[in-house]
This record gives sequence, C-alpha cells and structure tokens, in this order.
Amino acid sequence: MNVTVIAMGISILALLYAVVLIVQVMRRPTGNEKMVSIAKAIQEGAMAYLNRQFMTVAVFSVIVFLLLAFALPKGNYNNGVLIAVGFIVGAIFSALAGYIGMNVSVRANVRTAEAAKNGLQAALSVAFKGGSVTGLAVVGLALLGVSSFYYVFTTFLNIPVGDAPKLLIGFGFGASLVSLFARVGGGIFTKAADVGADLVGKVEQGIPEDDPRNPAVIADNVGDNVGDCAGMGADLFETYAVTLIAAMILAASSLTTMLGAAGIEYPLVLGSIAVVATIAGTFFIKIGRSKKIMMALYKGMFITGLISAVGFYFATQYYIHDINIFYATLVGLGITLFITLITEYYTAKEYAPVQRIAKASQTGAGTNLITGLAVGLESTFLPVILVVVGIFLAYYFGMESSLNNGIYGIAIAAVAMLSTTGMVIATDSYGPITDNAGGIAEMANLPENVRKNTDALDSVGNTTKAVTKGYAIASAALAALVLFQAYTEELTANAPSVNFIFNLTDYRVLIGLFLGGILPFLFASSCMESVGKTAYKVVEEVRHQFRTKKGIMTGKDKPDYGRCVDIVTKSALKEMVFPGLLAVFAPIIVGFLLGPISLGGMLGGVIVSGFLLALQMCTGGGAWDNAKKYIEDGHFGGKGSDAHKAAVVGDTVGDPFKDTAGPAINSLIKVINTIALIIAPILAMMLVK
Amino acid sequence: MNVTVIAMGISILALLYAVVLIVQVMRRPTGNEKMVSIAKAIQEGAMAYLNRQFMTVAVFSVIVFLLLAFALPKGNYNNGVLIAVGFIVGAIFSALAGYIGMNVSVRANVRTAEAAKNGLQAALSVAFKGGSVTGLAVVGLALLGVSSFYYVFTTFLNIPVGDAPKLLIGFGFGASLVSLFARVGGGIFTKAADVGADLVGKVEQGIPEDDPRNPAVIADNVGDNVGDCAGMGADLFETYAVTLIAAMILAASSLTTMLGAAGIEYPLVLGSIAVVATIAGTFFIKIGRSKKIMMALYKGMFITGLISAVGFYFATQYYIHDINIFYATLVGLGITLFITLITEYYTAKEYAPVQRIAKASQTGAGTNLITGLAVGLESTFLPVILVVVGIFLAYYFGMESSLNNGIYGIAIAAVAMLSTTGMVIATDSYGPITDNAGGIAEMANLPENVRKNTDALDSVGNTTKAVTKGYAIASAALAALVLFQAYTEELTANAPSVNFIFNLTDYRVLIGLFLGGILPFLFASSCMESVGKTAYKVVEEVRHQFRTKKGIMTGKDKPDYGRCVDIVTKSALKEMVFPGLLAVFAPIIVGFLLGPISLGGMLGGVIVSGFLLALQMCTGGGAWDNAKKYIEDGHFGGKGSDAHKAAVVGDTVGDPFKDTAGPAINSLIKVINTIALIIAPILAMMLVK
Repeated sequence: MNVTVIAMGISILALLYAVVLIVQVMRRPTGNEKMVSIAKAIQEGAMAYLNRQFMTVAVFSVIVFLLLAFALPKGNYNNGVLIAVGFIVGAIFSALAGYIGMNVSVRANVRTAEAAKNGLQAALSVAFKGGSVTGLAVVGLALLGVSSFYYVFTTFLNIPVGDAPKLLIGFGFGASLVSLFARVGGGIFTKAADVGADLVGKVEQGIPEDDPRNPAVIADNVGDNVGDCAGMGADLFETYAVTLIAAMILAASSLTTMLGAAGIEYPLVLGSIAVVATIAGTFFIKIGRSKKIMMALYKGMFITGLISAVGFYFATQYYIHDINIFYATLVGLGITLFITLITEYYTAKEYAPVQRIAKASQTGAGTNLITGLAVGLESTFLPVILVVVGIFLAYYFGMESSLNNGIYGIAIAAVAMLSTTGMVIATDSYGPITDNAGGIAEMANLPENVRKNTDALDSVGNTTKAVTKGYAIASAALAALVLFQAYTEELTANAPSVNFIFNLTDYRVLIGLFLGGILPFLFASSCMESVGKTAYKVVEEVRHQFRTKKGIMTGKDKPDYGRCVDIVTKSALKEMVFPGLLAVFAPIIVGFLLGPISLGGMLGGVIVSGFLLALQMCTGGGAWDNAKKYIEDGHFGGKGSDAHKAAVVGDTVGDPFKDTAGPAINSLIKVINTIALIIAPILAMMLVK
Repeated sequence: MNVTVIAMGISILALLYAVVLIVQVMRRPTGNEKMVSIAKAIQEGAMAYLNRQFMTVAVFSVIVFLLLAFALPKGNYNNGVLIAVGFIVGAIFSALAGYIGMNVSVRANVRTAEAAKNGLQAALSVAFKGGSVTGLAVVGLALLGVSSFYYVFTTFLNIPVGDAPKLLIGFGFGASLVSLFARVGGGIFTKAADVGADLVGKVEQGIPEDDPRNPAVIADNVGDNVGDCAGMGADLFETYAVTLIAAMILAASSLTTMLGAAGIEYPLVLGSIAVVATIAGTFFIKIGRSKKIMMALYKGMFITGLISAVGFYFATQYYIHDINIFYATLVGLGITLFITLITEYYTAKEYAPVQRIAKASQTGAGTNLITGLAVGLESTFLPVILVVVGIFLAYYFGMESSLNNGIYGIAIAAVAMLSTTGMVIATDSYGPITDNAGGIAEMANLPENVRKNTDALDSVGNTTKAVTKGYAIASAALAALVLFQAYTEELTANAPSVNFIFNLTDYRVLIGLFLGGILPFLFASSCMESVGKTAYKVVEEVRHQFRTKKGIMTGKDKPDYGRCVDIVTKSALKEMVFPGLLAVFAPIIVGFLLGPISLGGMLGGVIVSGFLLALQMCTGGGAWDNAKKYIEDGHFGGKGSDAHKAAVVGDTVGDPFKDTAGPAINSLIKVINTIALIIAPILAMMLVK
C-alpha cells in the first residue's frame, strides 16, 4: 500500500484517538454549580475571542488567497491556484487545531478541579488527557493535510512526485499566517489580562491571584487558553507542517533521481511512526511512587522517543537503505532531549540560575532585573551550541550517506526533532488546564487540598511550558535553515542562468542581513508595547469598577467580568495588526525593492537574531517566574517579603517576554521564510527578463 | 611635502593644543580646601584603579606580544615582529590617551564646580576645555601612531606602499585589546559603584545622590572618570585607528595600481583635515542668548562638520580626482548627523519615547521596565535603516567613481564619519566632568545655584553621552564591515588558489553565524552579572559601615571611602578577565577548529547581533535615565512619588545596559574582527598546505 495512504490513515487514527480522549474527559464530573458557572464564563470569553480573531484573520486570508491565485505565475500545473487552495486549507486546519484544543481545555479545566479532590494522579489524568487532545489534533491535522495534498497532487492531478512538494508550500503558508496572528493576538491577550489583573489586584488591593473579586480574573483565565493553548497549538502546527514540507521540497529538488519518491515520502513515514509512538507514550504518563510529576512526564516523552527511534531505524533501512540517515534522525531526537535538559536547568527552581535571580531579589527589583536579564542573555548560549553541533553532525551524516547530501541530513534531523511534537504539546498544554483548574478552585472556594494539588501540577507546567518554547524555537531555527535552502533552489530552478550566492562580503547580503536582524527587535518591541498599552486599559477599567462599585471588595457587588474580557479582546485584535503586517510585508518589500540576494541576507539575519532574542525572552521569562515561586516556597523571606515584592516585578516583566514577544518570534521567522519561498519564482523571473 | 609628514605634523599640533588647554584648565581656581580634598580622593582612586588595570592588561599584552612576534609567519618584512611592535605601541598609545583624558578630567571637575559659582557659561567653558583635551589626545595620538608607523615602514624600512598598511594592523590590535579591557573593567567599576551607592544610600537610608555620608560616594565619582572618560576614550581611539587602518588596507589591496600611494594616504588626509576642523569648532562652543546648552554643542559640531566637508572636497579633488568619492565622505558625515538626531529623539526628555517610559512608571516598576525594554528594542530600527542606507549610498558612489570600487566607498564613508571623533568626544566627556563637579558641590556644601548650574550641564551630558555611544556603535559596525572585507582579501592574498566565499547557505557559514551571533549575548550577560555581583559587595560594605560606625549618619564619623574604592577596583579587575578572554579566544578557536569560512560567518554574526544588542542597551539605558529625570522635573508626581520610585528601578537596570555591557560590545566586535585579520594568513596557509 502507498506510504502516503498509510500516513493519511495514521493521522486519522490520531484524530479518532483524540475523539476518544474528548469523550473520556467529557464524562468526568464537572463539580458544583458555581464551578460550572465560572467555567462557562471562561468558555464564553475564550470562544468569543477566538471567533473574532479568526474573523479578522479570515478577511486577511481571503485577500492573500486572491493574490496567490492570480498574482503567482501559472507554472506547469496552474501553480498559483493550487498554492492558494493549499493556503486556505492550511489556514483552516491550523485554526481548527487551535479550536479543538481550546474547546477541550476550557472543559477539562473544571473537571480537573473536581478531580483534584481525589488527589494528584486523578487531576493529572484529566488534565493530561485534555492536553493530549491538543497534541493529537495538531499533529493529526498537520500530517493529514500534508499527506492528503501530496496524495491528491500526485494521484489525481498526475503531477510528478518531483514537482508536487513545491506546491505544498501554500498549505505551510496558510498555517504560518494563522500561527502568526494566533501567537501575537493570543500572546497580547493573555499577558495584558494577567499583568492588568495583577497590578490592581495583587499590588494595589492586596487580594490574591484568581480572587473572584477581581474584575479581570475571568479575562486572565481566558488568556491562559487563547494564548498558551490555542496560540501555542497553531505555532507548533505550523512548525511541524512547514518542516515536513521543506524537507520534501529539498528531497524533490536534489534526490529524485537517486531515490525516486522514497526520499520525498520518507519524512511522512517518520511523522507517521512518531504519531503512533506518541499515542503509546501517553499511556505511560502516571505518577510513580516517587510522587514526582516531572518524572511522569519525562517517562512518557522518553517512551515516545524510544519507540520513534526504533521505528525510524526500520523505516530508514527500508526506504533509504542507509544507516547514516538514521543517525541524522537520532541527531534530531538528541536535540529534543538536550534542549529539554538545558531549558529545565535555566528555568526550574532546583538549579542555580533561578536561585541566583531569587537571591538578587533581596537587594530589590533593580538587582532582580539585572540578574534576570543576564540569565536570559546567558541562556541563549547552550541551545546555540546544541543547534550548531546538531547542524554539524546532521550535515556530516548526510554527506557520509550514499546520498552525499548534507542539507538533507539537516532536514531529516529537523523532521525527526519535530516528529515528537504531539507528545511535547501534550506535556505543555496540560499546564494551562491545571492553571485554570486552580483558578476555578480559588473562585469557587474549594477545599485547600484541591488548590494544593493543582498548584503542584501548575508549577511543573511552568517548566514544561518553557521547555516547549525552547523546543519550538530550536526547531524553528532548523526548519528555517531548510526553508532557506529551498528558497535558493527555487530561485535557481526559475533562473538557471543566474548563480545565486549569498556571500557575506556582498553589500546586498549585508544590507539584507541587517534588515533581517532588526525585524525580531522591532516585532518584539511592538508586542511588548501592545501588552503595556492593553494592560494599562485593564488597570483603568478595574480601578473604575472598584471605585464605582464599592461592594465588590466586601462581596456584595458582583464585578463585571465581561467588560474586561471585551476590552482585552478588542485591544489584542487591534494591536496584532502592526506586527502581523510587518512580518508579511518586510520580505515582500525587500524582495521586490532590493532583489532576491538581499532577501536571502534578510532570511539569514532574521534566523540568527530571532533565534537569539526568542531564546533570551522565553527562558529569561520562565526563570523570573520560577524565581518568584522559589521565594514563595519560603526562601529569602517568603511570600510578602521585600524580596518577594522585587520578584513580582521581575515576573511582570518576564510575562510579555515569555508569553508574547518571545514565542511570537518563532512565527515571524517562519512566515518570512515561507513568503520568501513563495515569491522566489517571481523574483527569479524578474532577474532573467 | 609628503602627506604622511603633514598628518604627523597636524597630529602633533592637536596634542600641543591639548597642552595649551590643559594649562588653561589648571590655571583656574580650585575652590576651598574641602573641595580640593574631595577632588584629591577622586584623583587618587581613579589613578590607583587605572594603574592596576593597565598592569593587568600589560601582563596580558606581553604574552600577546611574544605570540605575535614568534607565532605569526615571518612574511616578506619579518611581519610578525613589525606587527608585534605595532601592537605594543598601539596598546601604549591607547592607554596614554585614556590617562591624559582622565588626568585632566579629575582636575577639571573641581575647577568646574568653582567656576559654576559664576554661572553656566563659565562652568561650561572649563568643563568643555577638559573634555576637549580627551578628544584631542585621542585623535592626535591615533593619527600620529598610524601615520608614523606608515611613514617608518615606507620611508625607513623601504616597504612598498602596497604592503605597508597590512602591517599597521598590529597597532590597531593593541588599541582594540586595551579598549576592550578599559571598556569592560571601567564599565563594571562605574556601574557597580553607582548601583551599590544608590541601593543603600538612596533606597535604604534615604540620603540624596552624592551625599558625603555615603561610604561609596567617592567610588561612584571615581567610576565616572574611569568608565565614561578613560573607557570611552580608549574605545573611540581604537575605532578611529582601526577604521583608518582598514581603509588603508583596502586601498592597498585593490587600488594601488590605479592611484599609487594616493588611495592609501587619502584617509590620513581626511583625518588631518578633520583635526583642524575640530580645533576650529571648539571655539564656537558658547552658550547663546537662548541659554540652550545643547545648541552650543551642536554649533561646535556643525562648524566642525562644515569645515571638514569643505576640506574633504578639495582634498578629494586633489588626491582622487573624483567627485563621487567626495560624496562618499558626505555620506559618512550625514550618518553622524542623523545618528545624533535619532539618538537625541530616543533619549532626550523632550520627546515621546522617554515620556512614554515616564508615564508607564505610574503603574509601577513592572510597566516602567516593559516600556523601557520596548523602547530599547525599538530604538535599534532607525539607526539600522540609517546604516543600511549609508552602506547603499557609499557603495553606489564607490561604484560610480572612476575607481569602480564600492567597498572603498564604504571605507571612506566610515573614515569620514569617524574623522570628527575629536569633537564628539569633547562634547561627551565634558559630561562626566560636570557630573563630578556636581558631586563635589554637593559634598562640599556649595551654594544651591552651583549645583543647579552643574545639574543643567549634566542633564545635557546624559544625552550627548548616549549620542556618542550611538555614534561609536554605528561607526563600529561600518568599520567592522571594512575589516571583514580586509579579512577576505588577506585570506585570498595568502591562498590565491582558494576561492573564499561566505555563502549563507554553506553550513560552515551558518555555524559561524550562529556562534558569532551568540557572542554579544554571552558577553553582555557576563558584564551584567559582574556589575550585579560587584554592586552586591559594595552594598554589603556600605551596610557594614553604617552598622559599625553609628556616627556616619549624624556626621560625627567619617566613612571609609577607600574601602569601597578598593573593593570595586579588585572586583572589576577580576571580573573583566572572563569577557576579555572570551573575546580574544572565540575567533582563534573557531578559526583554527572550524576554519576560515566559519570564522567569516562568525564575523558576520557578531557584527549584526552586536550592533543590535549594543544599540538596544545604550539607547534604552539612556531613555530610562532621562525618564527618571523627567519625573524629577515634576511630572507624574515628581521626586519621591511612586512613579519616581518605579523610575529609579528602571534607571538602575539601565545603568549596566548603557555604561557597561552596551558600549563594551563595540570593543568586542572590533577585537574579534582584528584578531581574525591577524590570524588570516595562518588560516589561509593551513588550507593551502
């Protein structure tokens, strides 16, 4: 049977298993009436936001659809239209993955709170099942989309296998664009609500986190879902799909004569194997006798990696007949392993970096911030070394193999790294579910041990969230390199007479490099300003409610939660437009104004500076958060001490770093690379004319 | 008469004029006994630090000297020894420039305080004369060094003009190395003392800035001199010298057949003209009827630029016979003009960015920091666009000229930009003098109007300090590009059979790009950690003194200023070692381990990420500082309000950004590029073997 059909079958299997998990989650008890009504408010806010976000993106997408369909050169197979159709389907699938994940999350939260009455394992079971739905929806839909399009192109439209992968880029672009807006919009939403709620609630009124008297509390909980769940899902959907596609394009352009379809379809095989391994891995997420939550998650991840590796071995022997390419897949799995360990070191409470920040908090917010910024800057070092070693090894194995193709080695390492995405998402997105469960427990006045259980789960969730970001960024950097290569080959294919060299001493490349380097800085700045501005509006609204409804603090008046949700929704949607347009238009302007060589420089610049800045922001932000938690555990004076106050400031600054600007840079890098790839034929043809 | 002799003569003229200024400053009255004794303490602390810093660097320099003399290939003219001698002289000249400048500064400060009794103009006159000494010493010594070595090589050693410039790189390397340590060590010193003094003094004890009861107050004032004066002087000495040398190398390798010696000596002519223009410009620094201090400084800078431009026109017509190259010099002067305006916009109290940070302070330190970080990130955008446009235009004029050499156009633009260094330093280093004068006024209880006058001068000094940093970084980026080009040509010259292309799609270049990109992050992190650590020690010492000598606060006991100076001195010297070694060894390790192609990628990476990070840190830090001052002017509640407290935190974070890590990245970029250029022949020969 055709490999592509198997891939389609396995992705449908993943989606069916997700349905099973949904049913299991939904059957769990929802707790008392108060809990249900709180959960309902969160559900409504989240759905309202997501609907409006996708409406905005939809308008934008229709314009892009028309542009792609009519402005792209027709090519041999009416390429423009095929790419445009792929774009729309990619956008819809990406949105769908976010919807499914979020819809389950906002239902699993209240059930997790109820389950937490029965202990840690019961709560983890519900929350992790909820998270697994997101994970399976993301990889299932991505693999289904890529393999179906490839199948339709090659089987029904009779496009030769060597030409089909290029046309998949539309699907990847649709996913990229949705992920960009989901990350930026969701990121602004979640942190503006969080910071706004904390500034008035914790700092001015002295009420605890998730206190039902805080008018911004529902908005804060909605934010966890639209940012950490829907935004993150769309981000990884896109990274996963785009990496698969980029590897297939590369194989098509350089390996078709040697391997036929096998080299192109091999990434789909790897993806399929890892999906099966992910499903198997989910059964191992159980808290052992040691009671260590992190160990339970590691166990699942490790089993998934192990089964994947075994599967990769046989698949490689069968399809590529070369052990070296199998080694390249191991490089990818190895990067996943080490990035996890490195990120845990920099963000977990047990290690020096977080404790150093906590210690520095004793001399005030100033030294907390200096140290936190230093830790963030430093935390970029090991991941870069890891990626550099990974590139070196993957290239080496690619060259050593009978294919004699180093870049294909890098592409396969990237695919292998991303193949375990489903498991990574599952371990990540159980986090916001428990975070929400804790909020519901607090608001519904559940017994203290419920909150204790959800807090324990949430704290580990902070680390896994940071790990996922490190993973997403490192994989984005690898994927972008492969896309860059595909860009060069696309240029060459359309203008064979031109020798495309991006020489660093060429002033056009240098100009592009600077312009690319600046983008993540400008983009991150805009995201942070947006969080600041929106949070300011939340603060004003909350202050206004406390002023006008004196009974809120005593519990007599009910705060108007909807107003805050509404303010954040409107503001986030408005604010996401500038960074979104910046990402879309920068490569188009540079490409058409300065030409394909400068655009190549821009791709290089955005990868390097984006990778570094995103790492700094995500890891630094995570470290600040856990430094605060470390103090709350009773160190350096504990909760309420001056050190704690200083650490709260650090956490506030870290919030937009790690949940808005940092992760959104991922999407930025990939949107720019994808757009470059799409406009490459036009740029090349302009040169030849 | 030979051009080189004229250049030597003019640089000696500059040094003589500096002596005249020194005499004028020294003749001014020093005020009462108390003032003299305070000034004496600052002088002693500053000299003690500088002596120990140069002792440390001297040890290091001797090792480098021996390595250069014996490990470098002998070449045609015993190159290794000539480069080694140049290295030592470059190091000594650079140190000397710092010594002279600082020695005058620590004497001009007390005289400025005394002069401030007679009004703004009198104080400005003394302070600006002191600053001019530093400016003239820097450009005079740099121009003298480069032109003398060139003269000795070509006239006494009979080295052909086409080969001589390469050998000058030793002089540049000596300057780079000293500047690296001066920037890092001085930067750590100044900010650790400042932050430490503020944390206990202002925050814990509630005593004002520069209060004589604070045991760290002398260390703080010493810091202004060793960091802002000696460190900055060494930095610009190096940028100026290295840019001249890089332009000469480039001309030697590509233009000798067309222009003979003229193309090589032309940069020296530009330098000489600008020195004369700078001396002329200093006479125009007078406060007009509008009483605007900034206008007085602009007037001087503008006159210098204008005279330079006229001189450049005639020099270009005479030496190069091509108006296009004159246009390239105008591009350089234009970059200086616009970088000044852009930096002023981002750091002066009159404009939106600073006011936005001030406004955000109302909702606490968290939002102050988020906004400040966003402003810093954003502030990188316009300078990058400016430099990109500058590169484009300079390249264009270079290509349009009869020389048909775009890179030479960029090199000449860089030389023209840097030619006004003397004036820029003068307007910058009058700042720390007035800052010190204010401190002395405060400690010696001088009448209030003295402090008012010095404060007004100091506030403008904050902006000119930020401008100088923007100028230094933009020029460093241009200079580094020229060095990169020289690196390529040096490789090609030593291995003509190899085609050196740094193609961005080459995995070796990518690896280098990532490794280069990471360096500024790691380097900056280390600098900031060092400030944090050292400040912590200062805090502990100050707390200890307040605890053990109860009479300090009442004025009965005298604090032990020397202890704090000693602690900061030792710590700064210890802490500067790691970043220093990192900068020196990174290119050597990458070059020998991964080869010259990866090293080329590293140069590209360090330029792009260093340029961006340095801009973000310097401008962001300046904006935080002035946001605090804006609030102190009475906005948003003024001094003592909650907004002010939040702004103080922002300022504390901005301090190591703008005065330690940010400016030190300059030196990092150039040290790495210079080392690459020096080891290029060895790397090339290894390839050929």
